[in-house]
Amino acid sequence: MDIEKVNSMDFGEFVDVFGNVIERCPLIAAAVWSQRPFSDVEDLEKHFFAFIDALPQSGQEGILRCHPDLAGRELQRGTLTAESQREQSGAGLTSLGADERLQLAELNAQYRARFGFPFVLAARLSGRAAVPRELARRLHCPPAQELRTALGEVKKIGRLRLADLFGADPARL
Amino acid sequence: MDIEKVNSMDFGEFVDVFGNVIERCPLIAAAVWSQRPFSDVEDLEKHFFAFIDALPQSGQEGILRCHPDLAGRELQRGTLTAESQREQSGAGLTSLGADERLQLAELNAQYRARFGFPFVLAARLSGRAAVPRELARRLHCPPAQELRTALGEVKKIGRLRLADLFGADPARL
Repeated sequence: MDIEKVNSMDFGEFVDVFGNVIERCPLIAAAVWSQRPFSDVEDLEKHFFAFIDALPQSGQEGILRCHPDLAGRELQRGTLTAESQREQSGAGLTSLGADERLQLAELNAQYRARFGFPFVLAARLSGRAAVPRELARRLHCPPAQELRTALGEVKKIGRLRLADLFGADPARL
Repeated sequence: MDIEKVNSMDFGEFVDVFGNVIERCPLIAAAVWSQRPFSDVEDLEKHFFAFIDALPQSGQEGILRCHPDLAGRELQRGTLTAESQREQSGAGLTSLGADERLQLAELNAQYRARFGFPFVLAARLSGRAAVPRELARRLHCPPAQELRTALGEVKKIGRLRLADLFGADPARL
């Protein structure tokens, strides 16, 4: 895909392609379409991130709440989005032992109870061993700092998903 | 359902129940959860509407772009949300003749091309005969006015969906 093709899309096509760049938030892709034409993928990405940054705190928390737990109930039930399934699988989270799953479930529950949103991490950039370690660490961060950290992870995930769609190396985005 | 039950929901349950009050925008329900506890259904509704009103114009257009056409491709393909399916069906839009479908498809396309979002109407409050008439009328409205009108329809749809969830008479909401 190249940017000329993106700029020629009507909003239906655009939302079909980019609707899950931010997990389960097609509203954001649908809003970003208003900003076309885009000069390149970095410019497109910039508009996704600017929309997130401009939301009130409740909206930013809302984005996080649209994310599934890592190695959680949705993975077990097979109801993840295709992107999340691929990412959790790539990070090795689909092949955890029962003890590791239980440990993560407990940490996820503590995190949700403390912050009011799920633990979000760009799983593809971590190994499966790093997930519970990072979760246990972030569980003790101050809420305002943790909101910023979590939104940073949303953006990393979005950048990787855009790179997949453009067939680009995400390190160069 | 009563408001005490709503106020006791964690964000996962809340988004499961209210995630489609605004069509395909679970982000909005997920954001509204931040405002709990709610005093009653009117209060809950107020927070949904306030979130919509506070979005930048691109976000408001984004909400509209998450809506399907009336009697459009998604109805044909069976990919509507359960709520949209019920509403379009209730308005008689599932039993149009080929000529009526074609007429609506043409009007929908003109509308999308003019405004950059689909024609949104609380179909349950209209008869099937009113849909093409109203579409043809709104097609000629100034864009800023039409955006306001369309968001008003989004709110009517949201109010009816909340009333369904609470088993309430929408006229009393």
